[in-house]
Amino acid sequence: MTTDRKEPAYLFSDKQVAEKSELARRFLDTRSRLDENVHQADNFLVKRFYNLDHNTYMEGALPAKYKELMGLVASACLRCDDCINYHVIQSYRLGVTRAEQEEAINVALVVGGSIVVPHMRRAYELLTELYSV
Amino acid sequence: MTTDRKEPAYLFSDKQVAEKSELARRFLDTRSRLDENVHQADNFLVKRFYNLDHNTYMEGALPAKYKELMGLVASACLRCDDCINYHVIQSYRLGVTRAEQEEAINVALVVGGSIVVPHMRRAYELLTELYSV
Amino acid sequence: MTTDRKEPAYLFSDKQVAEKSELARRFLDTRSRLDENVHQADNFLVKRFYNLDHNTYMEGALPAKYKELMGLVASACLRCDDCINYHVIQSYRLGVTRAEQEEAINVALVVGGSIVVPHMRRAYELLTELYSV
Amino acid sequence: MTTDRKEPAYLFSDKQVAEKSELARRFLDTRSRLDENVHQADNFLVKRFYNLDHNTYMEGALPAKYKELMGLVASACLRCDDCINYHVIQSYRLGVTRAEQEEAINVALVVGGSIVVPHMRRAYELLTELYSV
Amino acid sequence: MTTDRKEPAYLFSDKQVAEKSELARRFLDTRSRLDENVHQADNFLVKRFYNLDHNTYMEGALPAKYKELMGLVASACLRCDDCINYHVIQSYRLGVTRAEQEEAINVALVVGGSIVVPHMRRAYELLTELYSV
Amino acid sequence: MTTDRKEPAYLFSDKQVAEKSELARRFLDTRSRLDENVHQADNFLVKRFYNLDHNTYMEGALPAKYKELMGLVASACLRCDDCINYHVIQSYRLGVTRAEQEEAINVALVVGGSIVVPHMRRAYELLTELYSV
Repeated sequence: MTTDRKEPAYLFSDKQVAEKSELARRFLDTRSRLDENVHQADNFLVKRFYNLDHNTYMEGALPAKYKELMGLVASACLRCDDCINYHVIQSYRLGVTRAEQEEAINVALVVGGSIVVPHMRRAYELLTELYSV
Repeated sequence: MTTDRKEPAYLFSDKQVAEKSELARRFLDTRSRLDENVHQADNFLVKRFYNLDHNTYMEGALPAKYKELMGLVASACLRCDDCINYHVIQSYRLGVTRAEQEEAINVALVVGGSIVVPHMRRAYELLTELYSV
Repeated sequence: MTTDRKEPAYLFSDKQVAEKSELARRFLDTRSRLDENVHQADNFLVKRFYNLDHNTYMEGALPAKYKELMGLVASACLRCDDCINYHVIQSYRLGVTRAEQEEAINVALVVGGSIVVPHMRRAYELLTELYSV
Repeated sequence: MTTDRKEPAYLFSDKQVAEKSELARRFLDTRSRLDENVHQADNFLVKRFYNLDHNTYMEGALPAKYKELMGLVASACLRCDDCINYHVIQSYRLGVTRAEQEEAINVALVVGGSIVVPHMRRAYELLTELYSV
Repeated sequence: MTTDRKEPAYLFSDKQVAEKSELARRFLDTRSRLDENVHQADNFLVKRFYNLDHNTYMEGALPAKYKELMGLVASACLRCDDCINYHVIQSYRLGVTRAEQEEAINVALVVGGSIVVPHMRRAYELLTELYSV
Repeated sequence: MTTDRKEPAYLFSDKQVAEKSELARRFLDTRSRLDENVHQADNFLVKRFYNLDHNTYMEGALPAKYKELMGLVASACLRCDDCINYHVIQSYRLGVTRAEQEEAINVALVVGGSIVVPHMRRAYELLTELYSV
């Protein structure tokens, strides 16, 4: 069963995110630099994987914002800080509130246990920067 | 930040689920039998953990149905068939469509890789029973 | 960097494998039955993932037989019996010897630790059936 | 830093455990059958690994019973039912009480999260058989 | 089955640990800073989880020092440096010897495999600082 | 089944690797410093484990270069940057080409999913330094 997919509409650009949060800026800069190197390698299967990954989070049967939060839960359970940063930022760009981000992290915390706590602490630091007024 | 929580409204009871799907019935029966034994042990911290777990999936800042799907994604990434069965059934009881369940599983598949495939195959068998007409 | 890929030449068909080993037969039958159900669901991203997975193990810069053994090592480290069965069978079909399979499993054992042992025990049972004379 | 090691003194034999618990008997029988097959393969590195594993749980700086419980916690966190069964049985053979086993499992539950719960349920079933009067 | 729980008696305060080891000091400082931010978020379920976690390691059927070592084994198996640091420090504060810490880490090493080695190396650096004379 | 083992013939020394790549140099230096501390601790089981680990990757039924690549796949699936660095360097020292390294990483990527991507990015940076002309 497959529903139509389309690009989500972001409320904020990566640039705006980087201006709001120093933690986000450093993450996005490093990721860009490393990904440029990956793109130059021009590996066919890596490009296919990136494309598949991109398609997974588009608007579909589920709103994109909930799929980004699902990506956040998966990333926190599997304990990958870079992945957590990425999905927190993507969720923020799609208008997810801080309370919604915290509830998604709570699902990861109860499923994944205290081993998730150090990652949660770092995620909360990013949340505090992104949602400061 | 904490939002009010309340019990979600289920469209189907466990009994109705068990009548719809033989796979679900067997899972629910085994789980009830084993949990009765756990409850008799009456371990304080286990009860506290069960209570915390229950609270995590209530209606809150995020609708309960999306949190059950997040539990499904986490379970599929961490590759626990019992947990997958549980969250597929809970999502079904809350009115989640099959297309929505499949999209959540796709997030787990792309985050978790081909190691998720055997669990996805078994989850699809349960989906087919639950959503048959 | 991407090398040309082509289909590997199998020494044995799945049918021949199933005739040699009862464990393999049961695994292949269950997998076929469940995959037929997945194919009927006709999920776009699942099909894309299956295709990507198929391309990963083709002859390329590395001989297909070593990539199947790498898939075996990954499966044993991540402790997925179905995935182990699959890659043991694929390696066997490509002419990998039992000594080579055991050395690959040793890499998984030392990287992954004693938690791999129960899966190794089951893999050895399959090896014994496949490589019996 | 290395302390002298010696074999622990077991209060019960595997045979006595198997007579007390049907779950334990089935586990021990399957394990023996599969290990006999592994031993016939006579793989040098597997034998070395088994030897290293055996040495890890001997009496040393820490009493053997606590190391078996540590093995139980590790097994529950890494979610391996066979490993859990093994360490529950070994702990029982060394005179560990049910309350002590439950507390060790609680450490695994809080560190590893709800993904540990299905394994805990099965472990409690084994505990109930082993510690019945 | 639940035994009475009470707070363990620590031989050393966090402050004393930080004075003994620069690695410990940096870990404790970062953890305090991040936890202060978590506490300000005042998330109900996070507070419940922290409370559950705290209760798990109290004196009970098992002495607190062995439960901290169990936490260490779990952390090393699940490969979380922050969690390893935490439980090494807690064990030290409860009077655990270096030989006991090393034996607990050996359980994690044999259960979790060589993937644990980089974390073991860093843990040994902390041990050397904490147990220097 | 056990084949004769012998030390592999390296094309490059660690020193040559460190001169070629700054990332490799930093990794090798830190590892040496930490391992010296481990060796001083002189823990019997750790030494046994290191010895077992060393034996696993020797020339045997499988060429050492493919076993180093299997170690790389396992390390990437289990997401350990230090272990990835180690096996990328060892493979390089044994004459593995960049295209072969990328194909091994592709196996890890498809088995382990997008959670492997951040580690792949860092591995590609090391590959670029090592294979620059």
